[in-house]
Amino acid sequence: MIAVDWGTSSARAYRLTPDGRLLERREGAGGILRVPEGGFPAALTAMVGDWLADGESRVLLSGMVGSRQGWQEAPYLACPAGLADLAGAVVPVPFEGATVRLVPGLSAEDAGGVPEVMRGEEVQVFGAIGLGAIGFGALAPGEADGLLCLPGSHAKWVRVEGGRITGFSTHMTGEAFAALKDHTILGRMMTGTAEPGPAFEAGVARSGEAGGLLHHLFGTRALGLFGRLAPEDSASYLSGLLIGHEVAAAMARPALVRLVGSGPLMALYGRAISLKGGEAVAGDSDAAARGLALIGETTLWA
Amino acid sequence: MIAVDWGTSSARAYRLTPDGRLLERREGAGGILRVPEGGFPAALTAMVGDWLADGESRVLLSGMVGSRQGWQEAPYLACPAGLADLAGAVVPVPFEGATVRLVPGLSAEDAGGVPEVMRGEEVQVFGAIGLGAIGFGALAPGEADGLLCLPGSHAKWVRVEGGRITGFSTHMTGEAFAALKDHTILGRMMTGTAEPGPAFEAGVARSGEAGGLLHHLFGTRALGLFGRLAPEDSASYLSGLLIGHEVAAAMARPALVRLVGSGPLMALYGRAISLKGGEAVAGDSDAAARGLALIGETTLWA
Repeated sequence: MIAVDWGTSSARAYRLTPDGRLLERREGAGGILRVPEGGFPAALTAMVGDWLADGESRVLLSGMVGSRQGWQEAPYLACPAGLADLAGAVVPVPFEGATVRLVPGLSAEDAGGVPEVMRGEEVQVFGAIGLGAIGFGALAPGEADGLLCLPGSHAKWVRVEGGRITGFSTHMTGEAFAALKDHTILGRMMTGTAEPGPAFEAGVARSGEAGGLLHHLFGTRALGLFGRLAPEDSASYLSGLLIGHEVAAAMARPALVRLVGSGPLMALYGRAISLKGGEAVAGDSDAAARGLALIGETTLWA
Repeated sequence: MIAVDWGTSSARAYRLTPDGRLLERREGAGGILRVPEGGFPAALTAMVGDWLADGESRVLLSGMVGSRQGWQEAPYLACPAGLADLAGAVVPVPFEGATVRLVPGLSAEDAGGVPEVMRGEEVQVFGAIGLGAIGFGALAPGEADGLLCLPGSHAKWVRVEGGRITGFSTHMTGEAFAALKDHTILGRMMTGTAEPGPAFEAGVARSGEAGGLLHHLFGTRALGLFGRLAPEDSASYLSGLLIGHEVAAAMARPALVRLVGSGPLMALYGRAISLKGGEAVAGDSDAAARGLALIGETTLWA
């Protein structure tokens, strides 16, 4: 089977054995924003045409490719939802030469009745808990409980109970960081990128003080004006502030959190969770492949 | 006397009688960012040269004109500070044909030891409390107590005790709003501007719920995706979220708050303060002129 995690700004394709082992992995040409109108069949062929020619006949897609801006819109499935629910709700996509299915995203409502949505992260969550995660209630996907965090532009915190996703919340932390760094006065005094270290930790500590995030943001500038925050440390401090506020809001009490994803955000989130009294366990960067494999096993392909 | 409130993006000049009454008011050519290196004497002459030719000989400046990027840097005065402290710390500025003085800004530290700064708002505060503010402890500036809010890109909340500014906090609410509206996915679904009304009030109400600001921001998008927030209401909702978070953090318990400033933000802040259980009293848009007049009376000009 071929699995593709196709998001807004990137695409990752995986070739899998019938029992879900990873044969080959590749970065695709780019996210859905780079695909022209009507260009998805050609983009898929460009990405995995050689695997299809070599005999693969099933393709399972997840992510923003199933949004209104993607190949075809797959309606959100409401939480709580498990692996079998997702497999039962895949949407067929017309394509010459292979059977293509799209995994729907999930929707939920938070305590205030405000809607929540995700596309792609649900597959990563099932891949991560299916991996036999340390500290989760059980190894079998149908029995796992836990709290997972998927860092990113729109970071997701996902609650899993009895192997089903029962709720989740999105935090616009990454996108807010970029907007504040590139389009406010804060960025004028910044050089370099966010790194785990003392400045990041100072930002996380500050997030626990009174005054609120909008006040803490100004402190980034004031500390710089008084020479108490160096330009090369400012991005790390700002990142610590934002991620600290996110973790404090999302991790109601110190908990074991499974991080899912890859890249430099993983270390930052791990450090912030730990400073807030929780425990972070490292994630699997191929959780999407594993999740799509598990869903693919249950999907009725005919 | 001539008083000039000269900020980053605007300048306002006032001609005052010896007893502090306002004779004439005008908007200047622009803020300090529009003045070229070494161009401040010429910019002042362009703004008020006719008043000087007509016999005025004293000019008192406040605001970012006293910053490193301004005409001349005036060191911050530390809080607590009263009107007489500011008058005693004015900085002489060389200028042909008039005696020019610069009012310094104020600095403070919040409970977490993080520095705070302002330039110009301190003058507006003394102007506002000198006006005989309803609800403040007394009419005389030397006796006033109270909490004031100056909305803006960097909104200030100022605590006055016994006629002195004892502390203040800055919230980057206005600049964060602009960055989020213009440079994140939230702005893609927005038309129009922030207005007081049901959408703004819904944003303020949302700010009181669990989940934190970074989570609430994403809700703006999710509500839009589900058709529960119209594009023309989104800016008002986002504004309500941000101002609501600011007011909740800055007004520790319901209080009487004197708003100082002018423009559409005044109505938004007034509504948010009221929804959070406080009481807002309307401000004076010429508080800077009044404050500079009061400082000018006490200043040693010779």
